[in-house]
Amino acid sequence: MSEEPVTLAAVTVLAVLEQAYFSLQVIYARRKFSVSAPSTTGPPEFERVFRAQTNCSEYFPIFITVLWTAGVFFSPGVSSMCGLLYLYGRFRYFHGYSQSSQGRLAPMYFSARVLWALIGFSSVGVVLSFFRVFLGVDLLQQLRSALGLL
Amino acid sequence: MSEEPVTLAAVTVLAVLEQAYFSLQVIYARRKFSVSAPSTTGPPEFERVFRAQTNCSEYFPIFITVLWTAGVFFSPGVSSMCGLLYLYGRFRYFHGYSQSSQGRLAPMYFSARVLWALIGFSSVGVVLSFFRVFLGVDLLQQLRSALGLL
Amino acid sequence: MSEEPVTLAAVTVLAVLEQAYFSLQVIYARRKFSVSAPSTTGPPEFERVFRAQTNCSEYFPIFITVLWTAGVFFSPGVSSMCGLLYLYGRFRYFHGYSQSSQGRLAPMYFSARVLWALIGFSSVGVVLSFFRVFLGVDLLQQLRSALGLL
Repeated sequence: MSEEPVTLAAVTVLAVLEQAYFSLQVIYARRKFSVSAPSTTGPPEFERVFRAQTNCSEYFPIFITVLWTAGVFFSPGVSSMCGLLYLYGRFRYFHGYSQSSQGRLAPMYFSARVLWALIGFSSVGVVLSFFRVFLGVDLLQQLRSALGLL
Repeated sequence: MSEEPVTLAAVTVLAVLEQAYFSLQVIYARRKFSVSAPSTTGPPEFERVFRAQTNCSEYFPIFITVLWTAGVFFSPGVSSMCGLLYLYGRFRYFHGYSQSSQGRLAPMYFSARVLWALIGFSSVGVVLSFFRVFLGVDLLQQLRSALGLL
Repeated sequence: MSEEPVTLAAVTVLAVLEQAYFSLQVIYARRKFSVSAPSTTGPPEFERVFRAQTNCSEYFPIFITVLWTAGVFFSPGVSSMCGLLYLYGRFRYFHGYSQSSQGRLAPMYFSARVLWALIGFSSVGVVLSFFRVFLGVDLLQQLRSALGLL
């Protein structure tokens, strides 16, 4: 096994541990604010924790998908670094949102930007692979030659 | 890298972009109908957009999972084509649901049928692989020989 | 293709079929308790079925992620066995929750324990791979030698 998927797998495990941490916070919030399942409504403090976790859960599969697509088709190092930044942003988002609706905004924009970067790297990686596989053209090398000619 | 995962990866990136588009629609609907987070209830127009996005998000990981399982174990070309049909169905579902509860039904059934096709291809692919790997039997080739004998 | 991913893929297909089964149960519950979309609130009987399905959906991507991470980086056999146990736990969770809030607890703890086992195997597998790839140290073999010396 090459070194590459190891860092992606490490970020993946960290992402799962972060989701587990968020889920535990919802369980604590259910106890603290006496909101027993299946209800998901209650005091705003509870609803913010619940919504923060739901939102992170919703984005988890998208994050894992682009982490690996960008990692395999573009660059495992760049993708893993973006992955760490995203997980950091999500941590700040969760705690910001737990404190106030307003507090979620800055880290939400940060996480969104990192996710867009991963989507961009995935797209570039897939387009480059398309050219290489279906047209036999290595765009990156052509770009390098073109720059070398300048 | 063979040509096969490239088309699956391309459909994957399209699926992520579609989810991003749906998320943006929810943000616009929150502004338009003045429903600020963490609330997820409001006028039916808002709730339909919100539920449409939630439903697509819920199915996203299942879709990606069967897209790749069918693509790797059955056929990347067939799986990618089904993937494109599914994303088209989801697009029509989202806009149909945004307009009326009734409007979601036809594209929902269409998407469900495509998803079932992908689940079927995944199952067939996994069963064929089981026979090949654990019993050393190539069912497809046996079927071909049997048909050739007729 | 080696024999290993086939069992992981088989568990993956079973997991998707289980999610499909849960989704059908929500559709039946909507009809039975006359709760038409987009509403997600209604009699407790309906809300329990709805929340049970939502909870299983939320955990699905995490489950698939650790199933494959543990399967690829630790052991496909161990991971597949845990996967089957998890799906069994989720089946009992869904039906327990459908009957009463209390009924979801025992299978929820069981599923959580299996999921933690998969997270643990994933972590161990990734750490071992890190040592092997980046430091050239095979921890497992060193452990075996150390035990042999005793």
